[in-house]
Formats: sequence, structure tokens, C-alpha cells
Amino acid sequence: MVIAEDLAKQQRSISVAEFFEKNKHLLGFDSPTRGIITTVKEAVDNALDACEEAEVLPDIFVAIRKTNSDVYRITVEDNGPGIVPKNVPYVFGKLLYGSRFHQIRQSRGQQGIGISAAVLYAQLTTGVPALVISRTGADVRAHRFELMIKTETNEPDILVDEEIDWDRTHGTRIEIEFKSTLAAKKKLLEYLRYTAVVNPHARITADIDGEITVFERVSSEVPPCPKAILPHPHGIEFGALKRIAATNSDTLDEFLVNCFSRVGRKTADEILGLAQIKPRRKAKTLDSDELKRLLEAMQQVKIPAPPAQQCLSPISEDLIRKGLEKEVQLDFIKARTRPSAVFSGHSFIIEAAIGYGGKLPAEGSAQILRFANRVPLLYQQGACAITNCISQVNWKSYGLSQQGLPVGPALIMVHVASTNVPFTSESKDAIASIPEIEREIILVLQELGRELKAYINRRDRNKLQDDRARAICSIIPEIARKVSDIVELPLVDTSPIEGKIMRKLVAKKRTCDGKVSIDVHNYTARELVFTLYNLSRDSASDAVPKPDFVDDFDGEYNKVWKCRLEPGTVWQVTYSGTGDGSIDLRGVEDNVKVVVDLDV
Amino acid sequence: MVIAEDLAKQQRSISVAEFFEKNKHLLGFDSPTRGIITTVKEAVDNALDACEEAEVLPDIFVAIRKTNSDVYRITVEDNGPGIVPKNVPYVFGKLLYGSRFHQIRQSRGQQGIGISAAVLYAQLTTGVPALVISRTGADVRAHRFELMIKTETNEPDILVDEEIDWDRTHGTRIEIEFKSTLAAKKKLLEYLRYTAVVNPHARITADIDGEITVFERVSSEVPPCPKAILPHPHGIEFGALKRIAATNSDTLDEFLVNCFSRVGRKTADEILGLAQIKPRRKAKTLDSDELKRLLEAMQQVKIPAPPAQQCLSPISEDLIRKGLEKEVQLDFIKARTRPSAVFSGHSFIIEAAIGYGGKLPAEGSAQILRFANRVPLLYQQGACAITNCISQVNWKSYGLSQQGLPVGPALIMVHVASTNVPFTSESKDAIASIPEIEREIILVLQELGRELKAYINRRDRNKLQDDRARAICSIIPEIARKVSDIVELPLVDTSPIEGKIMRKLVAKKRTCDGKVSIDVHNYTARELVFTLYNLSRDSASDAVPKPDFVDDFDGEYNKVWKCRLEPGTVWQVTYSGTGDGSIDLRGVEDNVKVVVDLDV
Repeated sequence: MVIAEDLAKQQRSISVAEFFEKNKHLLGFDSPTRGIITTVKEAVDNALDACEEAEVLPDIFVAIRKTNSDVYRITVEDNGPGIVPKNVPYVFGKLLYGSRFHQIRQSRGQQGIGISAAVLYAQLTTGVPALVISRTGADVRAHRFELMIKTETNEPDILVDEEIDWDRTHGTRIEIEFKSTLAAKKKLLEYLRYTAVVNPHARITADIDGEITVFERVSSEVPPCPKAILPHPHGIEFGALKRIAATNSDTLDEFLVNCFSRVGRKTADEILGLAQIKPRRKAKTLDSDELKRLLEAMQQVKIPAPPAQQCLSPISEDLIRKGLEKEVQLDFIKARTRPSAVFSGHSFIIEAAIGYGGKLPAEGSAQILRFANRVPLLYQQGACAITNCISQVNWKSYGLSQQGLPVGPALIMVHVASTNVPFTSESKDAIASIPEIEREIILVLQELGRELKAYINRRDRNKLQDDRARAICSIIPEIARKVSDIVELPLVDTSPIEGKIMRKLVAKKRTCDGKVSIDVHNYTARELVFTLYNLSRDSASDAVPKPDFVDDFDGEYNKVWKCRLEPGTVWQVTYSGTGDGSIDLRGVEDNVKVVVDLDV
Repeated sequence: MVIAEDLAKQQRSISVAEFFEKNKHLLGFDSPTRGIITTVKEAVDNALDACEEAEVLPDIFVAIRKTNSDVYRITVEDNGPGIVPKNVPYVFGKLLYGSRFHQIRQSRGQQGIGISAAVLYAQLTTGVPALVISRTGADVRAHRFELMIKTETNEPDILVDEEIDWDRTHGTRIEIEFKSTLAAKKKLLEYLRYTAVVNPHARITADIDGEITVFERVSSEVPPCPKAILPHPHGIEFGALKRIAATNSDTLDEFLVNCFSRVGRKTADEILGLAQIKPRRKAKTLDSDELKRLLEAMQQVKIPAPPAQQCLSPISEDLIRKGLEKEVQLDFIKARTRPSAVFSGHSFIIEAAIGYGGKLPAEGSAQILRFANRVPLLYQQGACAITNCISQVNWKSYGLSQQGLPVGPALIMVHVASTNVPFTSESKDAIASIPEIEREIILVLQELGRELKAYINRRDRNKLQDDRARAICSIIPEIARKVSDIVELPLVDTSPIEGKIMRKLVAKKRTCDGKVSIDVHNYTARELVFTLYNLSRDSASDAVPKPDFVDDFDGEYNKVWKCRLEPGTVWQVTYSGTGDGSIDLRGVEDNVKVVVDLDV
């Protein structure tokens, strides 16, 4: 029998680098092919975060180059503020090191793991150290490092640290090499394209094995960098409260006001009254039971939500719409930014957009674009709360078919912006199922669904109205003719009736005894300027009035009249001919015009 | 403009405890309700692992007790080898500390995170320290600890360490308290039930708020504890090879034989020849380029797969079948254990089972049971490679309907046993999509699918045959009677014809003028021993031959005759009565017997 002493000999502590070396798929390094995308993503996220903090318009260069048989060098260079030399080894050579983990504000990187994981992956698979160049200003020289990670201790291993000349005045460049393939090139470009969509102020230049693609910025305004806020009393947990209180020498009323967001003197008094603790006690003197009472009181008192507009940076409806329209041709697009909401004390804002028609494929599931803190999510769509919410909405009631996901020529974009995005794993591929977040996503999708439904209805109604109008225009004159035959009275003019029904610009073509006549009635209440096209085998050389010009193709004549028509008046042309072919009105909106061919 | 120096001030290292405190959902602490299941799971996994290492039959006690309004105390106690006092604080009070991370063998726990995460969760949400009692043998006293974790440093905080008397001679008990609910009680019992299914040697007793459930062991054999093996040359990565070589003073040929599994002197020579490195060089003298050549050679030379039977512990087809049959009533069950396979140098074995019919619900998706290293997986079914593989199999060709997942009264169980199960997150809920693993799962499901298909075909065919036989036995004598009436000749015996058609044991009951007769014809080619049951309101007191015994229930008589019948012969009984009720033949297989009630 093995006994406790034998087992004890095998027990030891595991460094976080060892842990992630063994579990590298948790960080998005499932395969070398995906490794390229993960590396680029982590470096670009860092670059965008740093530029935002320094209020610089980002100019990011990404290169993937084959160096030999199957080794690729991945380079990402930015014009950010640079990293001070003494910190470079830690930022790139130590997992769980960074500036954003302890701050309560929206940022792309949060964990201080991503880029060091790429360094770890390179040294594990290829043994090549990472090359980092960084310069923090025109008055200092750049530093060039070659770095690895000591896996057993998770500490940086500095192989080279030298000063060099660099033409950038500030910025950072990282080069990482490992065996890989370019099989995911399309996905990489997709990542860069959608990164540009949600970061309209960034220019990204990609050189993928010699092929250059530039994603140009569409806005020259640096979005304001979200400001870190204090924890919210409703979101804090016992352990965290105990920690903050333990080292705080303020009196409790000051402590509450100074260490929490949205707590003023009045709220502090209310909390302390409810907890039955004297306001003049010092925070660090509270025992566990008193802290529990304090926490309970903090969570019971009504306190406004955290100041989301300060710590979050939503994209805005306008920029989402512009960004998407730039990338996809659509007939309909609506974007919505929801008011901020809170889960476990973390602020978040949901933004979403729905696009319809245009060049979207008519068959198959709708296209889904997922984003978190302005970063596109490319993997694990099926495991993501966003996808889950999209399936839960009843799209049939909004005019789309549905098989789990909505089906048809639609695009659904959802952006979750939060001070703490709850990802399902460190690789940040999918958002965990948090009821408060799911509720907001469903609400915004329902809002947009109603807009889509209104659009589809309007489109269908326009079509129906046109069909009806066509029917009326052909039948009413027919009835009038029959009636006049029967009652043996002259034919009455039915135009006013048609006009009353339709309130549109109506073009009617009829042919009788070798004479073609086209009438255009303006039944609307305003003057209309339009162009009438008539394409047929008739040359209409005797037309009155003469066409403004005629195109002659292969025995067909396209006759064009430019017209201006007061409300309630009619314009007419007649010519000799067979009356075949078609007529068309241009220059007025689709829902204002009706074309009726009485010869057909 | 914020500059690099300002940013540098905010940069700091993040302790792994801080990281997981913020990202507790990654460890399965998404909600307090789930927290209970995760805590029990981690403690039970540890208990089973420790008992296996000590070769003890596990006896595990799990209790969930409400202590006040909404605080629950979770207790798990085992009869394992115990933990030496100096290690207890680290095992429970430090994340990433354990004995199994660095070993290449199948174990439930691998990360050294799980149970410390429960301690962290309790102190974060409720501030209550964990209570641990452990004793390593009859000759020492037990130690009782109260423990917390210093979040900033990820080091244990020992509040109490005292010797106490404890009635167990060896074992460990942990108590953890936090606010929660029992909403997931059903899921918790499900976890314990399926843990018992795949650990048939364990007894688990659960006391859930006073309600006791015992999962009794069905096997008294401790499965052999998997032995740690050396890394396999095909699975090692550059970084790991460099690390092993750096501190090794052996000559290269010894190094390869001593540090890798499946490498003998001959293989070592072959590798070194291919790498063009002298065998007498010392491992630690190799430079990066030489190591790269060595690695390439190691991966090119043919080497047998790792010794899976040593490092893995599959459940076995027999125990899977027994375990499932104990829990679910089934008409059909087949289990398969695949030969071992390898991904990235890690051995794995896939086992699976398919159950059909019985008490499984006829409607809806088939029931899916997922296991990894003998641990049931309860969450994230949709994100798991097992589910994905099940959907990929074409179940229609195996006789099941399918809508993504197979539909109908079926149960599909898959167990992945590996020296390194690739989970999608630290909470170990789902298996990542690894092509080698997915291939094996699909193969085993196809194998089982063919068995299921054969069963369903056989069942359908039997049913058809029985229907035909019944038709023949009722019609042929009828035809014979008509014919004898018409031709005015005596009735011929049609039995030989029936026998020729059917080749079965045929029991026929008919009633005529208050006389009941039951004939049993053996149309098969062998002697048959069987028991005839006749349950009816007739007491059959004048039966010839007399029944071997008669049961009398509530005015019904179950008459039992034990018979032995040569091929081609017939056995008969007659008695006075109304001929109601049923007859049944037992002791012969279903597909050999036909029962025909001519009175019905």
C-alpha cells in the first residue's frame, strides 16, 4: 500500500507557465495554424489598447512571412507610446503581468496572458526567442530585446538587451517565429477586417507573405479612453471588501465615499445606519461579522448604477452602421446601443445591428458577427451566449425563417462592451452565459427584429399596393367602357378616381389601331421631375412630343423623355407602332410610381 | 498624452489566485448553485484518485447541510491514505499545487486547482475558512486545519492547525461553507450516480439536507492504479526536450533510453544516426540546432505507441454494461473499448456503449452520457467533442431517426481516458475538438451503430416471422378443415406442414365444448427443455398431465408444467374449462418459440 508519505513526495507547486504550456489550447494555441491568428490578435489588441491610452491614432502593421520550409515569422508593429525598457521583459516574458487586470474599465486585454503565451508557444515548439523593439519617445533610443520565458518559474529570460537606432519615435514591434501554415489566412483577414469595422479610427496594414491589404481608417477621432472607476457597492464580494478594508485607515464614512463608486456622504450614512456600525470607526478595525453586516447593508441600499459612460466605450449606432455598410452591401440596416446595465457589479453595454438583403446570401443561416470590447470573436460560435440568445429569439415573428438560428439574407452583429467580459476560457473566444447579459442581448435583438419586421412589411406592402394599383388601373377604365356601352352615354374620364385611390405617379401605356399612347398622371400632391424610358421595336419617329433622345440597339429603340409634372396634371405622348416592349419611370422613388401596361 | 512612464506605473504581476478569483466561472463557479456541484466534484475526484493510489476500496461520504438562512455546508470525507500535515495547507490553500500535474498517467485531477478553488470561492463569497481534517495512519493523530488563501500571493493562510482525535485511522475530510441553493440537487445526484457507474468499486453515501442516498459498490476489486510513464518521443515538443536535456549528464544513447518511453538501444542508435549526432556526446552539451535535429529524428523514426495498458485505466466493456444496466432498464446494450491511440504523444482510449429500448423515453433526443478519466461531464454538452461526434454519425443508417443528435429510445455513453484529457476550460466540462480523439469516437460509435442496426433488424425480423407463423398456424388447419368438408374425407394432420415452415417450438391453445387443449410441437432439430405457464380462471383440477405446481392468486390459477421434448414430437395437456387467459413458454430463446392462441 502506497502511503501518505510516498504521495507527499510527488506533491509540488506548478508554475502558471507550466500549466499553460501543457494546456496551451486554453489560450487559443490549439494548432500552429490557429497559433498565427491568436498571436496577431493578442499583439493587435495590445497595440490598440496602448494607442487608446496614449490618445494616438493607431497605425498598425501586421506581417506574416515564411522564413524557411514551414516556419513563419509573425510581426506586429504599432505607433503606440512604447514600453519602458525595464518592463518589456515582464510584459512579453511573464504570464499574468499587465496593467489592465486590476482596473475597472473596458479594455481589450485584461489578463496579462495573451502575448506572453505566444512567446511561450514559440519557444515550446521552435525554441526561437521573441524579438521585441520598443521606444518611448524621440528623446530616448529604442531598446531591442531577445526574450524567452523560464517555464518552471514563469519569469522572463533576457537573452539580449541592447540600445539600437529605430526610425519610429515611439511604438513597439514584436516578432515571433514558429512552424505553422497559412491555412487560416482567410480567417486572419476576416479578423483584421472586423477589427477595422469596430475600430474605425485605426489603420491596419497587413502583409501576408507579400500580399498587402490595407484597412484604412474611416474616422480620425481617437475614441476617449475609458477611465478606471472604483468598485460598485452592489458588485463587491465579501473577500474583496475584507481585503480593501484591512489596509484602510479612513473612518468608515470616508472609506465608503473614497473607495466605492456612486457613494456620497448621504448613502454612506444610510449604509452604516442599516449595518448598525458607527461611522467614526476605522475601516481596518472591523471584524468579520461587522464586515458581513456592512456588505449586506451595501447591497440593500439603493445606489445608482456604475458610471458606465466613463468606464465603457461603445462603438455607437452611427459608426456600427457605417462600418458594416463599408463591408457588406445591404438593403436594410439598423443599429442599436442599449442603455448600460450591470451584472455582479460590472457595467456592460450591448450594441447590436441587423442587416438585410443586398448581397447577403438568400440561402442558409444568417451571418453572425460577435464582438467583445471592440474585438471580433472568431471561434466557438456554438458555445457563445450571443449565439445562444440569437437562437432564442423568435425570428419567425420578425419575418425571417428559423432553424435554431435565423435563416435568410440577414446579418446579425452583437457587441458586448464591459469592464469585465465573462469569457468561457482564457482564449476569449466565447461569452459565458450570464443571465443579465443574455437578457439585454435578447431585448436589443427584439427591438431590431421589430424594425426589420416593419421594413419587410413595408416592402411587402409596397409590392401589394403596386399589384393592387395595377389591377385598378386596368379594371376601372374597362368597367367605365362597359358602362358607357350599356347606358349608351360617352365614356367618362376615370382618372380622378384612379388618382384618389393611388396618390402616385401613374404611367399607362395602351395601343389602339396602330397608335400607341403613354399617359403619365401625377396624382401626388407635389411637382415631380422624372425620366420616361420606352424600349420597343417601334422607332416612334412620329412621336409627339419628340423623345429627348433615342438609342438604337439591334432593331430596338430606347426612347427617352425628360418630364416635369405639376400635381394633378397629366403628360402624354402618342406615336404610331405596335406597342410592344416596356416602359419605365426613373427619378422618383419606387413607392411613389406605378407603371401599367394595358396592352399586356 | 499619457506616456510610457505613466503606463508603466500601473503594470504589475497578477497572482494566479487573483486571476481565478476574478474569473471564477472558468473553474465551474459560475453561480452559487453550481458551486455546490463543483465543490463536491473536485473533492470526490481527489478522494477517488487518492484511494486508487493507495489501493483502498473507496468509501466516500458527501453531505450538504443548510447551516442558516442560505448558507450551506458541503462536507466530503474519504477513507483514503490521508495527506501529511505539512502538505495539507498547500493542497487546499494554494492553486496550482499537486502531485498529478507532472505525471504522465490517467488521473481525475490533473491541475492542482480544483479543491483550492472551492476554498477561494468560499472565502470570497462568505469569508468562512475551509475546515480540513486528515490522518495518515493508526499510529499518528489526526490534524485539524482552518485554512484560507492569501489571494495576492496565492499562498495558504493557516488560521488553525491542531492535533485532534478522529475515529478514522486514515482519510481526509473537508468542510466548505458558502451561500447557495439546492436548486441543482437533481444534477448533483446525477453526478454521484454516474460517478458510481464508472467507478464500480466505490461506495458513495450522500446526505443531502437529511435525505440519504447510497450508491453501493458492485465490484470489490480496486482497479490497478495507472503507472506514470516517460514521455514518448513522438509527443515531445522542442521546449520540453531542451529542458530535459539541459540538466542531463548521460550520454545521448543512455539519455534517449532512460528518459523516453519505448526507446531501446537500437531505436536510440537509429535516432542518433539520422540526426548525425555522436551517441557518446552528453545530452546537456547539445546546442539548439543539434537539439532540433535530434527532435526531428525522434519524430521520424518508427517507435511503438506509448504503453497505454500501464498508464491508462479503461473501465472495460463488462463493467460499463453492468454499471449501465444497474441504472437504466434496457432491451439492448453493447459496450466497446477501442484499442489505445495517441494524440500529440498522449495515450488515450475511447470506450463507448449504446443502449436501446427498455424504459428509455421513445420521444426526443437520445440520452448522452459523457465521461473523461472516469468522471461524468455534466455541463456544456453542446461545446463538447463527444456531442459533436455523436451528431456527425449518420444514425439513420443504423435504424435511429436523427435531428442533429439521434432521436428515439437510445442512450449513448462515451468515455475518454487519457494521460492528458484536452478540456476546453479549467472547469473540465467539455472535451476540446482533437482530430485523433474525434476519429476514435466516431469509429467506436459506428461499430456500436452496426450492432444496434443488427439488433433492430433482428427484432423487426422476429416480429415479422412471428406474425407469419401465427397466421400460418391459424389458417392452415382452417384450410384443411374446409378441404375435408368439401372432399368429404377425414381431416388430415397439418402439423408436419406447419413444422416444415416454421422449425420452432410451437404452443397452440384451443377450446372446444368446454375442453381446453394445449399442444406443444417441437419442430426444431434438437431436444428442448422448457416450462409452460398457463394463467387463467380455470383451476384445471382434471388436467392430464397434472401441472407440476399451481399458484392461486385472487381467483386466477397459474399452472406450470416442466417439459422435455424430443425433436419432431408433441406434448399435450387437456383440462375442462373456459380457455380464457394466456399461455407462455419459458426456457427457450425468443426467436425459437411461437405461441398461438386459437381461441383469441
